[in-house]
Amino acid sequence: MFKGRKRRVAAAAQKAGVDALLITHAPDVRYLTGFTGSNAAVLVRGARADLFTDGRYTTQAAQEVEGASITIADHPVAFAACESAVAAGAKRCGFDSAQMTVRAAESLRASLPAAVRKRFLVATPGLLAGLREIKDEVEQDQMRAAAALGCRLFDQLLEHIVPSATEMEVAMALEFMARLEGAERMSFETIVAGGERSALPHGRATLAKIPRRGFVVLDFGVVLDGYCSDMTRTVHMGAARKGEREVYEAVLDAQEAALSKVRAGVAAEAVDQAARDVFEAAGLEEAFTHSTGHGVGLEIHEGPKLGRKQTQTLKAGMVVTIEPGVYLPGRFGIRIEDTVLVTKSGYENLTPTTKAWLEL
Amino acid sequence: MFKGRKRRVAAAAQKAGVDALLITHAPDVRYLTGFTGSNAAVLVRGARADLFTDGRYTTQAAQEVEGASITIADHPVAFAACESAVAAGAKRCGFDSAQMTVRAAESLRASLPAAVRKRFLVATPGLLAGLREIKDEVEQDQMRAAAALGCRLFDQLLEHIVPSATEMEVAMALEFMARLEGAERMSFETIVAGGERSALPHGRATLAKIPRRGFVVLDFGVVLDGYCSDMTRTVHMGAARKGEREVYEAVLDAQEAALSKVRAGVAAEAVDQAARDVFEAAGLEEAFTHSTGHGVGLEIHEGPKLGRKQTQTLKAGMVVTIEPGVYLPGRFGIRIEDTVLVTKSGYENLTPTTKAWLEL
Repeated sequence: MFKGRKRRVAAAAQKAGVDALLITHAPDVRYLTGFTGSNAAVLVRGARADLFTDGRYTTQAAQEVEGASITIADHPVAFAACESAVAAGAKRCGFDSAQMTVRAAESLRASLPAAVRKRFLVATPGLLAGLREIKDEVEQDQMRAAAALGCRLFDQLLEHIVPSATEMEVAMALEFMARLEGAERMSFETIVAGGERSALPHGRATLAKIPRRGFVVLDFGVVLDGYCSDMTRTVHMGAARKGEREVYEAVLDAQEAALSKVRAGVAAEAVDQAARDVFEAAGLEEAFTHSTGHGVGLEIHEGPKLGRKQTQTLKAGMVVTIEPGVYLPGRFGIRIEDTVLVTKSGYENLTPTTKAWLEL
Repeated sequence: MFKGRKRRVAAAAQKAGVDALLITHAPDVRYLTGFTGSNAAVLVRGARADLFTDGRYTTQAAQEVEGASITIADHPVAFAACESAVAAGAKRCGFDSAQMTVRAAESLRASLPAAVRKRFLVATPGLLAGLREIKDEVEQDQMRAAAALGCRLFDQLLEHIVPSATEMEVAMALEFMARLEGAERMSFETIVAGGERSALPHGRATLAKIPRRGFVVLDFGVVLDGYCSDMTRTVHMGAARKGEREVYEAVLDAQEAALSKVRAGVAAEAVDQAARDVFEAAGLEEAFTHSTGHGVGLEIHEGPKLGRKQTQTLKAGMVVTIEPGVYLPGRFGIRIEDTVLVTKSGYENLTPTTKAWLEL
């Protein structure tokens, strides 16, 4: 697994015209070596990978790292990695300009021997992120497992969604079950937003009570074995008020219209537009205030973006969310989200939990 | 409150030789305006602050922002902020090179009109972070409240630390109580590390059981009203094995030695060295594999760093952790951590929970 990834990274580095590649973004480090610590750099040169970390991680690195040598550095790990590249005779070393700050890049450059300082570091923005957009078979299984756990948890959660509970109690019940089932953590702060709060696209759970009547948006994800799940369902407490059900059906139609476009070779913006077309026909286009979806994997937000002007085409092996929503401030909001694996002929829905109108 | 902060930011900007300042790091945005959304830029020009965010945050921005105008931008918020600065006649705009990536800075520069592109953006690394190291009175109260909540939770947690429980159950009990008491979230992933796992400095809670006999390290923080608490206690299950209590006392001595150095005007490295001196006398210097502490506030890791070669002097109003630890792989680990407010004459311990040897 790590062998195949190293091979693809080395090929991409060669294509980018560098003979070494510095990797410092933690999810990239994990992808390539299995290491989960917070401070590490990996240097890739051809088939070789060397990991640099600090003394806090001596034990953990020895337990986790596969297919890379380990060095415990006593100065910044990126400096140590570049030093070793220079010592090994590398001439041009790629670094991720989409992850490294301006100041970090300046310090790194200043740490180099004067003779190579000017030309050694070469910006190769998002090289790993690009490779990571397409999940290999091991990752596809990990994404399936994470999403399946999310679905099981949602089913178990339904009995906790009652008007006497606070949003926070619902969120904590979910998170507690998630951890007991092996989740390392949640993918992001759990959203439980009831009543008028459902109109907040990012309505994190508060001490507000679940309403007796009205919508509750539940948007959550678990991290299982490093991989993030992401799903949203919107349920209704009590009987629908006038017009609510129609808006729900419009969101569901938009979500299914977007899903129906998903297939390898389709432009990301076309998937987004399919949702927008449904909202426009329903007079709700102004109430859809974000993009239709995003890639997901070791990070909760990865490429590709599924939004306006995103001309990138979907590829088999990508895992993306499809999550249109409608937000009517002062009234309510509704969002429905699945995570799907893009295939040649369409998609595999990793979150097949029912999306039918649900009254609790 | 926001008025005073804006005044201090404007003065620092002027001192840095810029007539506008772009702020994009989310905790900086919150510090200056109260806005908690994930995507925003603030432009400061003299006494004026303008916040730019996107359509997802229309409602939230109106609820939260104080002392700044709000613009909902339909293109990247940093671009929109800089456009407005150019339109207002600003000549040099500071940006945080310690937060902005190389690529983001390049795109931002490319978005500027050709006439100003070359000289408009000026790196002002950590300008806000530097101001934020010193907590104003409102912040000091917020830090006291967050730390006090952490202490109350620790007391309540003790009854949950039993050999039949998993580390995860202990962590979830803690997090559940924290949320019910109003914490927005935890400051970082809760560390509950029992037995041999206590030798991992970052031993996140797992499904491993609390040992019948041995150490358990508990390191956790809550976020209350935006501000992070941080404390660590190490308890012992059952009776001590030979040598364990001596190592515990050495860690406690090191922690108290470091604390005794804390005072405005003292170099950060001197506090760190005080802990190291105790470990050296006990033959444990190799087992202390990290720094003595760090600043804490809206972020869990802020300046100053309390480590080797940190010559920065402490100032009244800083809030720092003091957290030496000893890690003996294959055996056990011990860490003891307080969060303290630096004063002219010494410090105020915000986490006065007992550090005496505790057998459960």
